[in-house]
Amino acid sequence: MATRSSPGKLLYAQSGGVTAVINATAAGVIETARARGLKVYAARNGILGALREDLIDTSKESAKSIAALRHTPGGAFGSARYKLKSIDTDRKEYERLIEVFRAHDIRTFLFNGGNDSADTAYKMSQLSKSLGYELSCIGVPKTVDNDLVVTDTCPGFGSVARYTAISTLEASLDVASMAETSTKVFILEVMGRHAGWIAAAAGLAGEGGDAPPHIILFPERTFNEAEFLAKVKATVKRVGYCTVVASEGLLAPDGKFLAEAGGRDAFGHAQLGGLAPVIAGLIRDKLGYKFHWAVPDYLQRSARHAASKVDVEQAYAVGKAAVEYAAKGMNAVMPVIVRTSDVPYRWKVEPAELSKIANREKKMPASFITKDGYGITAAARRYLSPLIQGEAPPPYGKNGLPAYATLKNVAVKKKLKPFG
Amino acid sequence: MATRSSPGKLLYAQSGGVTAVINATAAGVIETARARGLKVYAARNGILGALREDLIDTSKESAKSIAALRHTPGGAFGSARYKLKSIDTDRKEYERLIEVFRAHDIRTFLFNGGNDSADTAYKMSQLSKSLGYELSCIGVPKTVDNDLVVTDTCPGFGSVARYTAISTLEASLDVASMAETSTKVFILEVMGRHAGWIAAAAGLAGEGGDAPPHIILFPERTFNEAEFLAKVKATVKRVGYCTVVASEGLLAPDGKFLAEAGGRDAFGHAQLGGLAPVIAGLIRDKLGYKFHWAVPDYLQRSARHAASKVDVEQAYAVGKAAVEYAAKGMNAVMPVIVRTSDVPYRWKVEPAELSKIANREKKMPASFITKDGYGITAAARRYLSPLIQGEAPPPYGKNGLPAYATLKNVAVKKKLKPFG
Repeated sequence: MATRSSPGKLLYAQSGGVTAVINATAAGVIETARARGLKVYAARNGILGALREDLIDTSKESAKSIAALRHTPGGAFGSARYKLKSIDTDRKEYERLIEVFRAHDIRTFLFNGGNDSADTAYKMSQLSKSLGYELSCIGVPKTVDNDLVVTDTCPGFGSVARYTAISTLEASLDVASMAETSTKVFILEVMGRHAGWIAAAAGLAGEGGDAPPHIILFPERTFNEAEFLAKVKATVKRVGYCTVVASEGLLAPDGKFLAEAGGRDAFGHAQLGGLAPVIAGLIRDKLGYKFHWAVPDYLQRSARHAASKVDVEQAYAVGKAAVEYAAKGMNAVMPVIVRTSDVPYRWKVEPAELSKIANREKKMPASFITKDGYGITAAARRYLSPLIQGEAPPPYGKNGLPAYATLKNVAVKKKLKPFG
Repeated sequence: MATRSSPGKLLYAQSGGVTAVINATAAGVIETARARGLKVYAARNGILGALREDLIDTSKESAKSIAALRHTPGGAFGSARYKLKSIDTDRKEYERLIEVFRAHDIRTFLFNGGNDSADTAYKMSQLSKSLGYELSCIGVPKTVDNDLVVTDTCPGFGSVARYTAISTLEASLDVASMAETSTKVFILEVMGRHAGWIAAAAGLAGEGGDAPPHIILFPERTFNEAEFLAKVKATVKRVGYCTVVASEGLLAPDGKFLAEAGGRDAFGHAQLGGLAPVIAGLIRDKLGYKFHWAVPDYLQRSARHAASKVDVEQAYAVGKAAVEYAAKGMNAVMPVIVRTSDVPYRWKVEPAELSKIANREKKMPASFITKDGYGITAAARRYLSPLIQGEAPPPYGKNGLPAYATLKNVAVKKKLKPFG
């Protein structure tokens, strides 16, 4: 338990790719902290703001603005793709963070991100201990990739899953109605570098059989061109058209991504995008069918207008829990979602040790993919279906657009010299 | 006025690319006809079903199913891209249609489509007169391209406009929050072969100034690479990131589409798609910025979940009016939307002559594009803004997905020999 006389301040930072609901987590953090009389700073542009002492005083925002974060996509304080390496390699950065924390009496650090961020939060907790600086480091889960271990699901995923299932259903109705004289094969490329969670969610659009999507291409299954083309052909002959959902991370037999844009991001991940046109080219050249393809890209992860209610609630709940854990003096933990029942869907939030989450990656269970490799199983449906349920529409303005929050993001006065 | 003793039957056919609300028009047609005791057949797969005598008896559908069409995207009876040429060239087809109509005592033909369909409906009205077959031919407007003349707007456009504005806003919030370390330029490719209506609607996402979208590339303005790149660079320097919305029909200085997939559809239109990666390649090669691009393709025109209430109401209203016009014995007309006030937005439906609509194309007024060529004017906002207003969400099932209608589409017994 915390023994200091003052609880100090709380620093909240968003990290990595943002989602439709990461700001709902921010709302959970700030509203809970405010109720406890705890001051919340936010790091501008994620960990970069913490390193630069570029902090935002969230107490300058109205209660209404903070409440509106619950329905605002993107990262309200800015996020960053910036990975701290080991403490030995990046010792200066870690020590700078402690220096900034000390200067502003920050005693709670909530780092809202994925695997890499859990790792940073864990290392910060270790370093602060070794430097004798009392600090609660809490990792707060977020990633559309749904690839954090321990937690049953990751806030952000349910909404992109819902967007993907709805979009697959809608586009398939379109294609089905025109297939005789127009598009016969529709290819939807979805996010998912290493795990096919989002692609699997597209499977919820139909109940299986001849309902779309007819073919899902998972990164867990190496692409087999001949088998795929045969399946497309058979589907078009039987159903009249074929909806294909392809995960951006689909691998060619040589182990390379089937579509690489060439660049690499700050984490060293290959920058993907453009698989759908590759698949479309195959369809054209080998089968001669009229095709269309779609790559929603950021639209899928920012689609707050179609967010899942369950996802919004979980995103808020992990933010709230993180503050409560810190208040209890907990350190090096992450609030995770624990599923207690599939039907009716029930869940709760519990703390888990960051050391057991950091730098690991949850693959999709093999039991979620059908034997032929192109669909989802009943087990996958049981897991996925609850995550896309419930509507949580944002309020709309008179202009017909969602009334998303815009914060003032007032900077905290700096106390230190510039870093680096 | 009709002088026959029996009103005969009504044949409804969908044509060309489907929309998020074309089935709302079908609901307007069928519910209005039912209330008048008029039997409605639908052509399976548009005009093809009429030629093949492949008709659907909509009286086999429950009132609940027909009501559900109001919130179901795609074309419930199937649509087709199949253009009838002049009566001289395709005389056999036109005569076959009259033969099918005669066999089933079809005395009203409602053809729900765009420019080409208005032309077909017009020709049918002329031919039936010359053959002495009493027939009301009514064109019913539909096209996401918003390029029909006379009508103030086209059902289908408002919803794709709303989807595009919302998506532009959401994706821009995402990009803005990560621009410092990640994507600096985001390119959203939208539909619009010859007119930039949908691209213009993206402009509603912001109020101008430095709000996204920062650059709109209209098919009405020839692409100027150097000017565009300079504008992207200046925007990134000033705002930190740049959202570009590009119309698929963007033209290169040589007059060719900047991105052609190569194929041509049945109407002889070039099949487009893939402009966004071309623009992205330019950004990479000439400016070196990290980029992302999205091509929502069919997702945009089938996004019933995000439909505009105004659009749904107008789609229903033109279906209703079409039946009423036919009941009055009108021929060779189209119910069009007449705007009577911008603020508050008021509109009504009136008949217009098909001869004044067929085969023409409404361009976007030059006054809708800002002087620099990359944004929308106040006049454009005044016109566009009312069209995206109001929510009209579909009902959702327990599975978290919209509860879209599936019809039985029971075939009418054929009376004729196969055609052709």
